[in-house]
Amino acid sequence: MDVNSNRSEDLCNNGGTATTPTEKVSMEIHSVCLPPKKSTFQKLKHRLSDIFFPDDPLYRFKDQTWCKKLVLGLQCLFPILQWGSHYHLKLFRSDIISGLTIASLAIPQGISYAKLANLPPIVGLYSSFVPPLIYSVLGSSKHLAVGPVSIASLVMGTMLSENVSPAADPILYLELAFTATFFSGLFQASLGLLRLGFVIDFLSKATLVGFMAGAAVIVSLQQLKGLLGIVHFTTKMQLIPVLTSWSWETIVMGFSFLSLLLTARHISMKKPKLFWISAAAPLTSVILSTLFIFCIKSKAHGISIIGHLKQGLNPPSANMLYFNGQYLALAIKTGLVTGILSLTEGVAVGRTFASLKNYQVDGNKEMMAIGLMNMAGSCTSCYVTTGSFSRSAVNFNAGAQTAVSNIVLATAVLVTLLFLMPLFYYTPNVILAAIIITAVIGLIDYEAAYKLWKTDKLDFLACTCSFFGVLFISVPLGLAIAVGVSVFKILLHVTRPNTVLLGNIPGTHIYQSLNRYKEASRVPSFLILAIESPIYFANSTYLQERMLRWIREEEERIKAKHGSRYQKSIAMLSAVTAMDTSGIDMVCEVKKMLDKRSLELVLVNPVASVMEKMHHSNILDSFGTSSLYLTVGEAVDDISASWKPHP
Amino acid sequence: MDVNSNRSEDLCNNGGTATTPTEKVSMEIHSVCLPPKKSTFQKLKHRLSDIFFPDDPLYRFKDQTWCKKLVLGLQCLFPILQWGSHYHLKLFRSDIISGLTIASLAIPQGISYAKLANLPPIVGLYSSFVPPLIYSVLGSSKHLAVGPVSIASLVMGTMLSENVSPAADPILYLELAFTATFFSGLFQASLGLLRLGFVIDFLSKATLVGFMAGAAVIVSLQQLKGLLGIVHFTTKMQLIPVLTSWSWETIVMGFSFLSLLLTARHISMKKPKLFWISAAAPLTSVILSTLFIFCIKSKAHGISIIGHLKQGLNPPSANMLYFNGQYLALAIKTGLVTGILSLTEGVAVGRTFASLKNYQVDGNKEMMAIGLMNMAGSCTSCYVTTGSFSRSAVNFNAGAQTAVSNIVLATAVLVTLLFLMPLFYYTPNVILAAIIITAVIGLIDYEAAYKLWKTDKLDFLACTCSFFGVLFISVPLGLAIAVGVSVFKILLHVTRPNTVLLGNIPGTHIYQSLNRYKEASRVPSFLILAIESPIYFANSTYLQERMLRWIREEEERIKAKHGSRYQKSIAMLSAVTAMDTSGIDMVCEVKKMLDKRSLELVLVNPVASVMEKMHHSNILDSFGTSSLYLTVGEAVDDISASWKPHP
Repeated sequence: MDVNSNRSEDLCNNGGTATTPTEKVSMEIHSVCLPPKKSTFQKLKHRLSDIFFPDDPLYRFKDQTWCKKLVLGLQCLFPILQWGSHYHLKLFRSDIISGLTIASLAIPQGISYAKLANLPPIVGLYSSFVPPLIYSVLGSSKHLAVGPVSIASLVMGTMLSENVSPAADPILYLELAFTATFFSGLFQASLGLLRLGFVIDFLSKATLVGFMAGAAVIVSLQQLKGLLGIVHFTTKMQLIPVLTSWSWETIVMGFSFLSLLLTARHISMKKPKLFWISAAAPLTSVILSTLFIFCIKSKAHGISIIGHLKQGLNPPSANMLYFNGQYLALAIKTGLVTGILSLTEGVAVGRTFASLKNYQVDGNKEMMAIGLMNMAGSCTSCYVTTGSFSRSAVNFNAGAQTAVSNIVLATAVLVTLLFLMPLFYYTPNVILAAIIITAVIGLIDYEAAYKLWKTDKLDFLACTCSFFGVLFISVPLGLAIAVGVSVFKILLHVTRPNTVLLGNIPGTHIYQSLNRYKEASRVPSFLILAIESPIYFANSTYLQERMLRWIREEEERIKAKHGSRYQKSIAMLSAVTAMDTSGIDMVCEVKKMLDKRSLELVLVNPVASVMEKMHHSNILDSFGTSSLYLTVGEAVDDISASWKPHP
Repeated sequence: MDVNSNRSEDLCNNGGTATTPTEKVSMEIHSVCLPPKKSTFQKLKHRLSDIFFPDDPLYRFKDQTWCKKLVLGLQCLFPILQWGSHYHLKLFRSDIISGLTIASLAIPQGISYAKLANLPPIVGLYSSFVPPLIYSVLGSSKHLAVGPVSIASLVMGTMLSENVSPAADPILYLELAFTATFFSGLFQASLGLLRLGFVIDFLSKATLVGFMAGAAVIVSLQQLKGLLGIVHFTTKMQLIPVLTSWSWETIVMGFSFLSLLLTARHISMKKPKLFWISAAAPLTSVILSTLFIFCIKSKAHGISIIGHLKQGLNPPSANMLYFNGQYLALAIKTGLVTGILSLTEGVAVGRTFASLKNYQVDGNKEMMAIGLMNMAGSCTSCYVTTGSFSRSAVNFNAGAQTAVSNIVLATAVLVTLLFLMPLFYYTPNVILAAIIITAVIGLIDYEAAYKLWKTDKLDFLACTCSFFGVLFISVPLGLAIAVGVSVFKILLHVTRPNTVLLGNIPGTHIYQSLNRYKEASRVPSFLILAIESPIYFANSTYLQERMLRWIREEEERIKAKHGSRYQKSIAMLSAVTAMDTSGIDMVCEVKKMLDKRSLELVLVNPVASVMEKMHHSNILDSFGTSSLYLTVGEAVDDISASWKPHP
């Protein structure tokens, strides 16, 4: 049976034209060859470079002079050097318009989001000043609008105030917030520096859809307190706030402005060209409501206002970082969770707009930029910032061309901090709640969830898990559960892989699933199985059982039909992209079992790494080279040809 | 470009012979078709049956009468009914010989292992009586020799005595041991009943090699205390026992018998036919040493002996099970860890000998048998038992034919319990230590570890992790780390999958790796990429970057060579066995990016589930059916043909 007469054994080495003359068969059989030999060290190096440098970040430096290399290196560290040199007035005009547009959005949102994190409103403005400046020097995205974001603010507020009351101990709370910001920046920068950016990939889009929706529900319910004018502040994230006191003036005002903002948002969503309506709405609402309160100030006792805000630039806060004491672990944990969430948002936003304008954002460099920006922020009274989706979209629509729009934004915030703070004295808190609700309501993405359900039920499961986990358990646990579900999905696919029975499409060398292609037909005397997964410890037992079941069923089928039996099993390994020692044992085991039933097993098209492992474990000796083929067609032809002389 | 003139669009439906006449091309192009339509419920049903019933356990019941089905069902529950009906004298003769052989091994090992678990020696004998009887009725392996095993004994002893001192509180300790046994049985039986047997697959062979070796080192060092005659007993697992007191008589005696046992083991390993030498050695040593101490009893003060053992059968212990109180969690945890370890050993041993004799052991049924045996054992003063590798090997070599050898073993233990207990009075403890060391030394499998290193470095890493984890941290943590490494290995493979550039082997339709097959050559104007992994959230960003890098490198290469550029990218999806929503987004994204560079992307041979998902997510609309091909060859031929008229 092992005739394989015209197999070109040394095809891999000599270029492969050595067809030996043969009496029975005319086609050439190609032998499966090993990948080029590499030492363990070379393999390790290759694997590590594939893990940490998949994008080959140094390719630009190849074949350059030392001087050029230095320039490129500096440009790599400070992308501003790259685009700054050919910056011109026309670009600046676009940037100034978009910068002012996002400033009008960033100022009210900054104040609001700081309140969401239970921080003084002014911290939100500080955080819209220093980080954008730093990002404009270090960042590689042209459209990212940097500042505080709702999710990270909510998560920081929730996690910190579960342990420290912002009302009872404001200084400690502030210290913890800056410390968490520092650790979040440190974590982000390290991920970028160590090129571990793939960590954030584990927060899949499905998970994030659920997480954002859950967070949005929490925030909205929380802010309803503000809209209802409830003064009493609950420190814990709770679904139903305690209704202790309310005022009808607040309610009327809150809901009027909320409907104004939602209408503006709705218009901009329907007609993307009118994006400036929703971009201008928050500042307009703030101005209108402040003027209104200012006019009726004597009669508006029930409406709580922001009150006095300190004029002046960011005070230094490096001395407020909290590196020892009982709350250090809390600060680190909060830093990690907010860090990974804000990083995910920032990188995703950067990538989205980069792909729209067809330029590339380097994930690892972007992480370092965001991380350094947060570390610097933590020393200048800023809390966690990142690229905000809503503001970046406005920035993009307003025609931002470079990161200069962030500088314009920072300048506008600077002017506000220096001169305009007293104007916010009469701004009612209720308007901040309305701004937050309008911002987060866009995070509930029904359509994406429905699409997940339609396309991938397990992704939908991950989405619902993170939604309910965040809503009913807690932010870190909800996220952990969702990541767990996503990982479980991978493991499930590996643990219970597909095996498919193949047939030949008549007149071709194509072998495809019998179940899927009606025109494919079984090849008599052969059982052709495609294994659609790596063979690992986690599935080797399953695959062994499943293969034996296919063989048993095939035997029964043939016995019922012809009374005879088939003679060869062919296992198609094209999709077996990896094999570990358990997998190799499994293949040996199946081979032995089939040998005992006088059936034969032939392997087809193992990928390089599988071939290599089979070679190292010496199982190829027991198979013999004649049991390895490059294609199913060649295997069938060759084996059938070798049968003909002994019918 | 989208001519694809003679694509047989409806091939999937009508049998596929519709070749339309064409002016340019003569070959037929096969279209990729969707798998047969199934409702969500059908898919779920199919998936669940694949997860929980991969072996189709009910296939024997098909097309049978009710009466026959009942008989088959009973035989399924009690395999003894299956083989018992045609049991005959010749089989019995073999079974009685093998049963007595394993009894001679099981009695001294039972006493020794019980000491390893810090339990009274008699519990080891009890555990060699009831469980074998139950297994012989329920078990489906013919060669498994049931009783206490070293690993489970060690783990139970270590985990329990970390919290409860067996010397200070022997009753509580015994209660906890029985309770842990009960929970371990419950856990095992539930795994079998719920058909979750694949859980034990996660303890891969690589992990177990490391774990066993680590445990063996601990046990050997611990037993050295016994050999050195140290009376003071440390309750914690420690590497260096405290040398408080010793006697030279014990040392001389211990090391003499240890060398006797090791020599016997060595002989049996060299010549497998002499297996009875190592099988008989323990009992011989016990008898010799007991006689020796009996003779010199007046002069042997330094040598500690077993002392009085209570005669009689297993007392009931259901009333000793401990279902509430502070140690319940400890008992459950110990039960889970010992349960999963003993299950893994039992099932692996059963499978090993089944495959040697070419019969099948049903993993889930086996788990139920072992689980019920342990639950029953916990009510009759037995601790955790399972199929022991060493005794099963002796059983197999001694010619056991059915589970009757377990009944013979139980009978021999019964006789011992009823009549022979006083004979053990003078048995020195040191001999038990020697027996344990001899038994566990075989668990250190250098060769397997070396083979792991040679074949799969990551498997070797999992092995070393579990070795050092067990040795230096603790049993459950060591195991958890090793399982973590194994899972990490799977995730790493998914996170950083291979992409391979393909070329055509001249004169064929075979497309293979350019790097591996020297005779494969690039196809001009095409970039053919094979993606060797499912596309998931965890790797979609990486794959996108990697694909764009291939494209960039290819462009640079062509530019350097010809000044022109290539026109089509072909992504070969044969090995993309799954895709989630992130994967689909990634494919869309790459398609868009390539469109912007006026390159085109064509997908080849998506598997059924991927095709289905792409269909549901409507991305096929943006691709058009003309961007999907069944084979790379057809894609290249068809596209080249469509180019010819416009050169």
